[in-house]
Amino acid sequence: MRHSIVLSTQSAQFQAATFKGDLEKNLLEISSQGYDGVELAIRDPEMIDLDRLDQLLHKFYLSVPAIGTGQAWGEEGLSFSDPDPDIRNAAIQRIKKHIPVAAHFGAVIIIGLVRGIVKPGVDHIQGMRWLVEALVECSAAALPHQVSLVLEPINRYETTLINTVPQGLDLIKEVGADNFGLLLDTFHMNIEEVSIEDSIRSCGDRIYHFHVADSNRWYPGAGHLDFRSILRTLSDIGYQSWISGEFLALPDATTAAERSLTHLLQVTS
Amino acid sequence: MRHSIVLSTQSAQFQAATFKGDLEKNLLEISSQGYDGVELAIRDPEMIDLDRLDQLLHKFYLSVPAIGTGQAWGEEGLSFSDPDPDIRNAAIQRIKKHIPVAAHFGAVIIIGLVRGIVKPGVDHIQGMRWLVEALVECSAAALPHQVSLVLEPINRYETTLINTVPQGLDLIKEVGADNFGLLLDTFHMNIEEVSIEDSIRSCGDRIYHFHVADSNRWYPGAGHLDFRSILRTLSDIGYQSWISGEFLALPDATTAAERSLTHLLQVTS
Repeated sequence: MRHSIVLSTQSAQFQAATFKGDLEKNLLEISSQGYDGVELAIRDPEMIDLDRLDQLLHKFYLSVPAIGTGQAWGEEGLSFSDPDPDIRNAAIQRIKKHIPVAAHFGAVIIIGLVRGIVKPGVDHIQGMRWLVEALVECSAAALPHQVSLVLEPINRYETTLINTVPQGLDLIKEVGADNFGLLLDTFHMNIEEVSIEDSIRSCGDRIYHFHVADSNRWYPGAGHLDFRSILRTLSDIGYQSWISGEFLALPDATTAAERSLTHLLQVTS
Repeated sequence: MRHSIVLSTQSAQFQAATFKGDLEKNLLEISSQGYDGVELAIRDPEMIDLDRLDQLLHKFYLSVPAIGTGQAWGEEGLSFSDPDPDIRNAAIQRIKKHIPVAAHFGAVIIIGLVRGIVKPGVDHIQGMRWLVEALVECSAAALPHQVSLVLEPINRYETTLINTVPQGLDLIKEVGADNFGLLLDTFHMNIEEVSIEDSIRSCGDRIYHFHVADSNRWYPGAGHLDFRSILRTLSDIGYQSWISGEFLALPDATTAAERSLTHLLQVTS
């Protein structure tokens, strides 16, 4: 398993993007701490200077395992399940714009909050239909580029669509695309899963990416989750991809990143 | 320790009031399952028929350890920390109206969501001042009736005021009243506390009431919390009061109540 951490390429409201601000300074910090990669939160691929990003990533020997897309929802309100077809379409087009960037880096594209929230009173089945339609379309567009999409089950307070791993596995069957899988996040799993380990095992080879944060969304080691058991379970099912830190920048980003990696390496040694 | 479960005396949106609807039928069910008491969620004491309630409670040998007041916030928007002084005062008067009812039953009065939410942009320190003022006034009014108020730390998604046990203990110092203590809830603690057991120990004799729900807010035993360890810790610090079930009515209220009590008795046997 290799270790990465979330970095936002633009300023954003989302609290759990661990690193924000000066790009070069942050990449230097992340690299010198021993991380192998950086998960990029990108609101719109047009807003980033890909050449400069490439140069900096090479300079600091960092890979990009995943691209987070939630800022398109957080900052612009784009969503796969909005009742307005123009907003749904804009969300789909935005995700498609990430495909060449993801292909360039060999990264997965994360479908987090951009799936939207079906508000009380709005038909949940209809919201799910729109979500499946969007995922089918985006997965098909990503396939020729050998890019995968990953949906993250997110706790009940942040969305009404796909809170749990069993719901995520049902969705995978409905979408029916080999390049569509799940991203599991330990913070959300702590609230939603009956057993974190059993849910990991139930996914088999459909876990395409993995987020770590402790029970209080601080860095691993700051709460009461058993990362020794969680990482051992991932290893047992043959997961060999990335472990990516997405947690609050508390007490500050540098300290949190350092303590996270120390804890994760310690419990797997 | 004695066991109770939450019952709403009026219809309400709050999802975690386990029992709702026909009062007599619910009290019969709760009593016949072996519960010793029922925690009453009351929006406004004027809306209940106290004589009939008394008769039914006697009939089914049920005590009332606590009165939940959150519906005044959920249904009417009353709050201790609203910028509007009239709304703050209405919230204070509402809590005071609960005092004779609480005295009658020997119950504590729960300050849950009625404390309100300081919204982004509103000054948090000012919100805390209003909260302390309201708690000082209500505790003083309750004292001659030998009634205690209990504040429940509630997770970050539901309020911005007092999410954690350490914050609750600081608040206790600020309010400075012997009849003001804490209500701990295992669902909220799973999200907010570094260690559930350490937080329980840190409270000493200031835990005046205790809520159980599992990590997913289903009945104890349906998630991944270790109730054997939690209840042992409560016992170790000398807590001898009520264990009150506040969880989702899933798969239904009767089944949830039954499985909860079975699990709690099993882990303490």
